[in-house]
Amino acid sequence: MARVSPEHLEARRRQIIDGAARCFTRNGFHATSMQDVLREVGLSAGAVYRYFSGKEELIAAIVGEAFDAIRGAFEEAARQSPPPPPDELLGHVLRTVLPGKVGADSRDEFTRLIVQVWAETLRSEELAQPLREGFRRMRGSWAEVVDAYREAGIMPADVPADHVARTMMAVAQGFIAQAALFGDARVEQIEDGLKALMSMQVPKPS
Amino acid sequence: MARVSPEHLEARRRQIIDGAARCFTRNGFHATSMQDVLREVGLSAGAVYRYFSGKEELIAAIVGEAFDAIRGAFEEAARQSPPPPPDELLGHVLRTVLPGKVGADSRDEFTRLIVQVWAETLRSEELAQPLREGFRRMRGSWAEVVDAYREAGIMPADVPADHVARTMMAVAQGFIAQAALFGDARVEQIEDGLKALMSMQVPKPS
Repeated sequence: MARVSPEHLEARRRQIIDGAARCFTRNGFHATSMQDVLREVGLSAGAVYRYFSGKEELIAAIVGEAFDAIRGAFEEAARQSPPPPPDELLGHVLRTVLPGKVGADSRDEFTRLIVQVWAETLRSEELAQPLREGFRRMRGSWAEVVDAYREAGIMPADVPADHVARTMMAVAQGFIAQAALFGDARVEQIEDGLKALMSMQVPKPS
Repeated sequence: MARVSPEHLEARRRQIIDGAARCFTRNGFHATSMQDVLREVGLSAGAVYRYFSGKEELIAAIVGEAFDAIRGAFEEAARQSPPPPPDELLGHVLRTVLPGKVGADSRDEFTRLIVQVWAETLRSEELAQPLREGFRRMRGSWAEVVDAYREAGIMPADVPADHVARTMMAVAQGFIAQAALFGDARVEQIEDGLKALMSMQVPKPS
């Protein structure tokens, strides 16, 4: 058997994941068969099953990659001290992770895939587990950023960091839902909205 | 034929919608048949089809009711001048609309139904249309509230009201996703997070 370079293996894996993501997005998980995936990527069953045992493993790989990308974008931002304010940080992460994930100009397509993964998760513990773990870690990353805001004296300390983390995650998830469902969502809108919230003049509670 | 009171008709309609919502939540849209709905509500086909032609109409009714409830909660808040700050307003709406929608103690169940509606929407124009319309109206309601914040001088005027509206909708949608997927989401967390954002000390852009 010919020796195969790690680069070749990785490129194959990429090719299969991207093709599967396109199939799932187009037809939904249930309506997509492994045969559809083989046809989409133009590879034999032997070549594909070498990497993935089936649809569930493909979906889990797509979810895992998305979380890895988000964490990468976060770590990049965490190098700054203090970290960028919430609007910039969220904008940076959304811009880094969403566009071109599946292919050029396919941001809304990718968000539609995410919404399908959410719905699938409600019925599949195999999918729910990695999603729950990814959410837990993301909340941890955001909470670290919130701690850094506090150390820099730009955020009050009377709210649990995890609650801010959940709120920022909610903005990101809601943006994904809007992009998937309505198609006209732009990252700048969310950045603007957060900026406006951050500059509100709210009377302090007595 | 016996004369039937409007109250009776409305109670029947309610009974059917609630039963259908329980079925859809439990088994998903695709796996639920009209037979399942009939069994759940304990009515004959004749009695149910008098109100709804099929699953799609039932789903559309559930979506329509949810948006009506949200609008109601908004109108209630809009009576105040200035309206309550974003954290309180969103908390009020989420608390009014989500709990007990399907039955007692069923908030997370209802959020799971919403996430399923989102996924269905990606493949059904019949569902996409009312959801798009509801989102457009909700954005309009939020934008009016934002205008009221500005008139009261508590929010700067340099950000389009629609962008703040989209951001607040994103927080709500993200909260729904978290409650559906992870089950441990509480409205107070989101209120806290918004409060922290609103009291950030962010240097004004030069």
